[in-house]
Amino acid sequence: MNFLEERIMKDGVVKEGNVLKVDSFLNHQMDIALLDEIGKEFHRRFSHKKVTKVLTIEASGIAIAYPVAKEFGVPMVFAKKSKSINLDGDMYVAEVVSYTHKNRNQIIVSKKFITAEDHVLIIDDFLANGCALEGLISIVKEAGATVVGLGIAIEKGFQVGGAALREKGYDLQSIAIVDEMDPAKGTVVFRPQD
Amino acid sequence: MNFLEERIMKDGVVKEGNVLKVDSFLNHQMDIALLDEIGKEFHRRFSHKKVTKVLTIEASGIAIAYPVAKEFGVPMVFAKKSKSINLDGDMYVAEVVSYTHKNRNQIIVSKKFITAEDHVLIIDDFLANGCALEGLISIVKEAGATVVGLGIAIEKGFQVGGAALREKGYDLQSIAIVDEMDPAKGTVVFRPQD
Repeated sequence: MNFLEERIMKDGVVKEGNVLKVDSFLNHQMDIALLDEIGKEFHRRFSHKKVTKVLTIEASGIAIAYPVAKEFGVPMVFAKKSKSINLDGDMYVAEVVSYTHKNRNQIIVSKKFITAEDHVLIIDDFLANGCALEGLISIVKEAGATVVGLGIAIEKGFQVGGAALREKGYDLQSIAIVDEMDPAKGTVVFRPQD
Repeated sequence: MNFLEERIMKDGVVKEGNVLKVDSFLNHQMDIALLDEIGKEFHRRFSHKKVTKVLTIEASGIAIAYPVAKEFGVPMVFAKKSKSINLDGDMYVAEVVSYTHKNRNQIIVSKKFITAEDHVLIIDDFLANGCALEGLISIVKEAGATVVGLGIAIEKGFQVGGAALREKGYDLQSIAIVDEMDPAKGTVVFRPQD
């Protein structure tokens, strides 16, 4: 097991409805040392590629993308979930269905911050059905920029998102892939990785 | 001028309606080196105090709170703006009016992550009328915890929030305090600090 899998075993909680709660260290209370380690791990996995921007989506994605952008020495950009009066008119928009919140959001990135020359590494905390990632990918493509890869902290391997994105040829790297969860026993089974 | 004031002069944009756009480096695209420097500056200003938690509010606050929590070697907690099905029932709730989005939000922190023993440093990117900070303070108080201080990247000194919080006795530290902005000339005047 790698460091993130070990932490999930120690502090993650499996709930009914395929919910894996990691709010004590990853997406509500945040363990900065763990996040720094996640940043280093994504740098290790993508360091052979050219990266000019790290793109994520608010809110908890920001804390994963921060150490990644730091490792690569590039700016981080986060997509916003609703129109803000502080955003300029000129922005990329994508539609995203949220599994967690059971609603639809527009996600928005200012056109100033992703251009055709950019090589974008997309980062998020969770991957389940992949809707958030598809939205971020469509924004990068609309900008004419290159998707370098997709870096996910925890992938729910039993949902369709990961397989669909790999099928499309994206370099999707998930530090922990959960293939099975049992809320009754509280157990988690991870997909073996190199 | 300090490093943040210099950056605001260089890359900030003054708009009608008392809007200071810093989205190219602070709250949409993020300059990680600048944020790391902000983290070090808050550590310098609060290092004589005991801090056990850094508390902020989603979304852009997370990227300010990250380097602060790292400097202090403590966990970061961020308040969420709406009820999520992934949050436990047991949470602190405060009502916050958003100046930017012209709406009301409930902000929520799980009771697991702030306890009576905690010494909480509250961090945010902007302070204008102070509603977000008041909400975070009320959550810390509801937990019976101690508010160590308030650390803000950019305070709009011509709005009421900062004066009201200092009046109440809080140790409020803002790295840049904007006392005047002129959208026609594009100028910003900072309050002198030691």
